[in-house]
Amino acid sequence: MRMVDLIQKKRDGLSLSKEEIDYIIQGYTNGDIPDYQMSAFAMAVFFKDMSSQERADLTMAMVESGDQIDLSMIEGIKVDKHSTGGVGDTTTLVLGPLVASVGVPVAKMSGRGLGHTGGTIDKLEAVSGFNVEITNEQFVSLVNEFKLAVIGQSGNLTPADKKLYALRDVTATVNAIPLIASSIMSKKIAAGADAIVLDVKTGAGAFMKDLEEAKVLAKAMVEIGNNVGRQTMAVISDMSQPLGFAIGNALEVKEAIDTLQGKGPKDLEELCLVLGSHMVCLAGKAETQEEARELLLQSMKNGKALSTFKTFLRNQGGDETVVDEPTKLPTAKYIVELESTQEGYVSEIIADEIGTAAMKLGAGRATKESEIDLAVGLVLNKKIGDQVKVGESLVTIHSNQENLDEIKTTISEAIKLVSTPVKAPTLIYDTISI
Amino acid sequence: MRMVDLIQKKRDGLSLSKEEIDYIIQGYTNGDIPDYQMSAFAMAVFFKDMSSQERADLTMAMVESGDQIDLSMIEGIKVDKHSTGGVGDTTTLVLGPLVASVGVPVAKMSGRGLGHTGGTIDKLEAVSGFNVEITNEQFVSLVNEFKLAVIGQSGNLTPADKKLYALRDVTATVNAIPLIASSIMSKKIAAGADAIVLDVKTGAGAFMKDLEEAKVLAKAMVEIGNNVGRQTMAVISDMSQPLGFAIGNALEVKEAIDTLQGKGPKDLEELCLVLGSHMVCLAGKAETQEEARELLLQSMKNGKALSTFKTFLRNQGGDETVVDEPTKLPTAKYIVELESTQEGYVSEIIADEIGTAAMKLGAGRATKESEIDLAVGLVLNKKIGDQVKVGESLVTIHSNQENLDEIKTTISEAIKLVSTPVKAPTLIYDTISI
Repeated sequence: MRMVDLIQKKRDGLSLSKEEIDYIIQGYTNGDIPDYQMSAFAMAVFFKDMSSQERADLTMAMVESGDQIDLSMIEGIKVDKHSTGGVGDTTTLVLGPLVASVGVPVAKMSGRGLGHTGGTIDKLEAVSGFNVEITNEQFVSLVNEFKLAVIGQSGNLTPADKKLYALRDVTATVNAIPLIASSIMSKKIAAGADAIVLDVKTGAGAFMKDLEEAKVLAKAMVEIGNNVGRQTMAVISDMSQPLGFAIGNALEVKEAIDTLQGKGPKDLEELCLVLGSHMVCLAGKAETQEEARELLLQSMKNGKALSTFKTFLRNQGGDETVVDEPTKLPTAKYIVELESTQEGYVSEIIADEIGTAAMKLGAGRATKESEIDLAVGLVLNKKIGDQVKVGESLVTIHSNQENLDEIKTTISEAIKLVSTPVKAPTLIYDTISI
Repeated sequence: MRMVDLIQKKRDGLSLSKEEIDYIIQGYTNGDIPDYQMSAFAMAVFFKDMSSQERADLTMAMVESGDQIDLSMIEGIKVDKHSTGGVGDTTTLVLGPLVASVGVPVAKMSGRGLGHTGGTIDKLEAVSGFNVEITNEQFVSLVNEFKLAVIGQSGNLTPADKKLYALRDVTATVNAIPLIASSIMSKKIAAGADAIVLDVKTGAGAFMKDLEEAKVLAKAMVEIGNNVGRQTMAVISDMSQPLGFAIGNALEVKEAIDTLQGKGPKDLEELCLVLGSHMVCLAGKAETQEEARELLLQSMKNGKALSTFKTFLRNQGGDETVVDEPTKLPTAKYIVELESTQEGYVSEIIADEIGTAAMKLGAGRATKESEIDLAVGLVLNKKIGDQVKVGESLVTIHSNQENLDEIKTTISEAIKLVSTPVKAPTLIYDTISI
């Protein structure tokens, strides 16, 4: 087998066999196939796509390129959730305790990552003492006993994907559905998921700006998951504006605490209930969406969701008292309201700009070396469709820097007002399953 | 400017500006742009093509990536000929003296190269004493005085093309018309051509197997040439079987001597007259094709073509007496006839197989390190359409090895006979000019 022949085969629109795809991924991972052949191949895939079978084979080849997490010691069906990412997405913090509280085992491996805010681990570290450096044995026994634990990413998961993603990033081959879908799915499968719920975001603040494109990606991932024996479904949700109110690490922990009690932002709560219901069903803890939703709502009402969160924090060394006294979370030095200078209705909140403003405050990492400030961030006081009067606060800025002129300008420009009423955007556009 | 953005631009079907193309080629030549970006770019070009302007800009960017030969000291319009390559193509050896004999300056820079036989320099070195290691001053003064000289390739011509070609070869991006056309044209222009006659071969023994594809390539090159100020035209000629009779170095010199006197194979003579007439017209030595052809025919008849060849050989140290006594050329130890075991009409002569057989005898280089045997090769005694009787010789094998069993089998299998008469193939399919 020669890589040049396989590139040509794909270039000419033919399908590759499992053996051929394994040859490519193994060769690329171990360095036998150079970057310059892989990038030409990726561009050929961009233009000529891959069949369902090829996508499934590519995904499993990437899974098998590195370590695979074995969660078989954990009882029950391990359902993982993945979001394609957006701004102010607090769902993971809410969903973990929420579904665990109704008996779904949540064995979360998480990272730090770059972005507008930190990753799930950074956010949880806003709780004093919280620690993800636990052993695999502790992890397994915590999930078995309490249904929820978070461990830091370890091992060499999907090295083929890491290498290929870095290459795609500099060769204009990121936007190829088979490559995006197999990249996401391989990571979830390598991390040990039995079943997967995908939250595919669409809108100005999402990777997939266009609804139709988001559906195509969702279908591709659902198909891969089911073709490789992992029950998978996807929800297409709105990211035309940031989700919820909070963008920042401690601020999102606070928002998660509110949401677990049914006192959070309505859009965040609704999305958590929808995604959570799918997780509960896939885990076999309910027969129907309605039944699952009822379970989750009860858990929010009767305090079980919140107590599961407390127990989880305590189990991993965290100060559980923050749940009842959120003022114990890191607090910024300056809390400044950005007041509206006009009146009208919010028609647009450019999520990317808001996210960038939060990152500039220190809420996220621009590079791997950046230090995160867990206390800082933004809280939206108005969302699309809300009426605004002159002098009302649009956004509360939590900052440890005094000069906020530039940040204020960025945020002001990102929030558009119009004079006539505006409808709030749809939250859930579609649900994709096999 | 960032290469990733330019790859994306081309990927999305947009045109690149001259500045952008210069950035790519300069960056790639000096190593700032890595192979993995260039190969993704080449694949994007494969799918999205390039406009006429982009092709011209790409060609000139490659010309400017290295040294350019300055032939301005040579009087007259320097017309170069380029063939896309085939088997048994003796045209260069014939055309040089032929058009020089009617006053067209031929300043030929030539190489050795890999292939079924050696390059032009190897062939000329079959003439004892012939030497291409002359100074630039000698080269210029020889062309000015005698209209013909050949010099070995020196300098760093089109390094961008060399690097890009090697990359395309291993990334399935060879077959992209804008890349093929700019590669060929950049080399001719860097070598100092004022005007260019292209011989684009088509048929089983050619790079472009298909006539329509050959026309597309020819048009692309003609357009580039004229767009960058070099009068260019192309002839589409047949390579469904080897051209002429001889395949081998000394054997082709002998065939060229015959053809210069009007005693060569008819297809070779005709192609030389057609290509030569175009060269004569582009050089301004005749007004019409008919006038040019008449000049060339006269020169063949009155001995001027042959005497120009003699003078050329003598000027560069070669033994001109080989022209009158071709037995002085290197001769093989074994001259063996391959006789037909059946009767019929020749319907097919697979040029690639015949070429490979010649190379196996030692006529050409498989790798840069291979030694060429100038004496060996093949002479076809029958061509497509010819009638053959049992026992008649199909091919004369000139060999320095005694055991020819394998070679004979290869050749026999490459020559197909049928029982009903066959028409000889068309020699010239089309002429392309602006």
